[in-house]
Amino acid sequence: MDTRPIGVFDSGLGGLTVVKQLKALLPSEQIVYFGDTARVPYGTRSRSTLMTYAGQDSGFLLRQGVKLIVAACGTISSTVDDSFIRALPVPYCGVIEHTAAAAAAATRVGKVGIIGTTATVNSGSFARAIHRCDPKVTAVARACPLFVPLVENGYIRPNDPVTTLVAQDYLSFIREKRVDTLILGCTHFPILAPVISRVLGDGVTLIDPGVYTARQVAQILNEQHLAAPYRGDGQPADAYYITDQSDFQSVASIFMGDAFCGQVQTVDVNDL
Amino acid sequence: MDTRPIGVFDSGLGGLTVVKQLKALLPSEQIVYFGDTARVPYGTRSRSTLMTYAGQDSGFLLRQGVKLIVAACGTISSTVDDSFIRALPVPYCGVIEHTAAAAAAATRVGKVGIIGTTATVNSGSFARAIHRCDPKVTAVARACPLFVPLVENGYIRPNDPVTTLVAQDYLSFIREKRVDTLILGCTHFPILAPVISRVLGDGVTLIDPGVYTARQVAQILNEQHLAAPYRGDGQPADAYYITDQSDFQSVASIFMGDAFCGQVQTVDVNDL
Repeated sequence: MDTRPIGVFDSGLGGLTVVKQLKALLPSEQIVYFGDTARVPYGTRSRSTLMTYAGQDSGFLLRQGVKLIVAACGTISSTVDDSFIRALPVPYCGVIEHTAAAAAAATRVGKVGIIGTTATVNSGSFARAIHRCDPKVTAVARACPLFVPLVENGYIRPNDPVTTLVAQDYLSFIREKRVDTLILGCTHFPILAPVISRVLGDGVTLIDPGVYTARQVAQILNEQHLAAPYRGDGQPADAYYITDQSDFQSVASIFMGDAFCGQVQTVDVNDL
Repeated sequence: MDTRPIGVFDSGLGGLTVVKQLKALLPSEQIVYFGDTARVPYGTRSRSTLMTYAGQDSGFLLRQGVKLIVAACGTISSTVDDSFIRALPVPYCGVIEHTAAAAAAATRVGKVGIIGTTATVNSGSFARAIHRCDPKVTAVARACPLFVPLVENGYIRPNDPVTTLVAQDYLSFIREKRVDTLILGCTHFPILAPVISRVLGDGVTLIDPGVYTARQVAQILNEQHLAAPYRGDGQPADAYYITDQSDFQSVASIFMGDAFCGQVQTVDVNDL
């Protein structure tokens, strides 16, 4: 049993879709979230910039005394390498491995589509992870960079005409390649699942990384005896840190719905 | 006569639309451009973050020995205050004053529309500047945050269906308010002038801040005897500094067309 919080970080607030799944699966765990809203978006940054940011963001969480670090960001998870993960003094969990395994298990036709930011797609991280799970499954990927600002600007209704038009453009490759499973490889994208489902029809299973990342976290906590005990009314509040005072409450409600509950504090990005 | 370069900075590469106008009007001037591509976009950041970034960005230009600083960014120009400008050891020029004066002079019906990022519109900077020029002119403003990622992702054709749909949504207030003049209050927006013109029709005059900012720079150089002499073949090359190795050449061609010519170097954002 370990009462220390789980640390979750993301470029901005998209990682809250992962927090939502963590809280649903592991209600006894306290969350410390770090969203780098002063430097969002990460998806178009270079590798060296991303490695610097990942080090600063995880360093902040470690100073908060976390027992495990979740990179709730497809871009960061696709960028950090083994040496980064080995250097951390606590277990690490990205959004790639369990998500890729779930997609490889879900496809009946042996073809998985991947959508994400430019950095995530260029990294080939999901495709490699799928290949490790099942070399017979083929993967096709498409960067969908405009989905992130569409979500953050509230173009999220299932029948939104702008988002539908963009989705039809981005997702035409899914139809052409006849995949039956699609990884939503950016933490913003589950918000657009209704639009994506409408564009693709019922024949394509959508894989939400938050769901499988939460399961991977649960597995690590069990294996390493790090799970928190049930604390009832004594459960400490979650803490949310952001680097820019954006309109957190309204954006948080886009990502987490009613699941959001906790204190929000601003951190100076120059102190990271 | 002063051979030192003009320093131009922006959150990213949108300021290149201002550089294009500077080079057309002042071909003897050398330009040093700083684009903070590691921290773009600025338009949704808080005031305190923006003030920090403006200080770092202009400090970098001053270390390059510039004779004048242009904030080629609607967001920064709307955020910095008199104390910031007075603290600079060289003249400063933002994109607000001359642009607002041009719009106030252009309107025949006494109504000017303003579009920009969320930060620019919330600041009220253009509206105040218009009021200073002519208190009888009324101004209406609308944030168009999605225009920036649309430009950066190449949705810039005059008949692009996605950008047209977004523009119809954003610009409906222009029709309702019956303005006849519209300030493109973000340096990205002149790229979308053909789409905006198609949506609004010929009855609305579009005001490109780059044009009027270049005229203001020319005026400052003349008044303060800072203009560069004609140097013919001895004209030094322009220098472009960015904080993240984005796909500079292709994006620069979106903003500047064939006018781009110079060396590009990357600066570590942690050294600012």
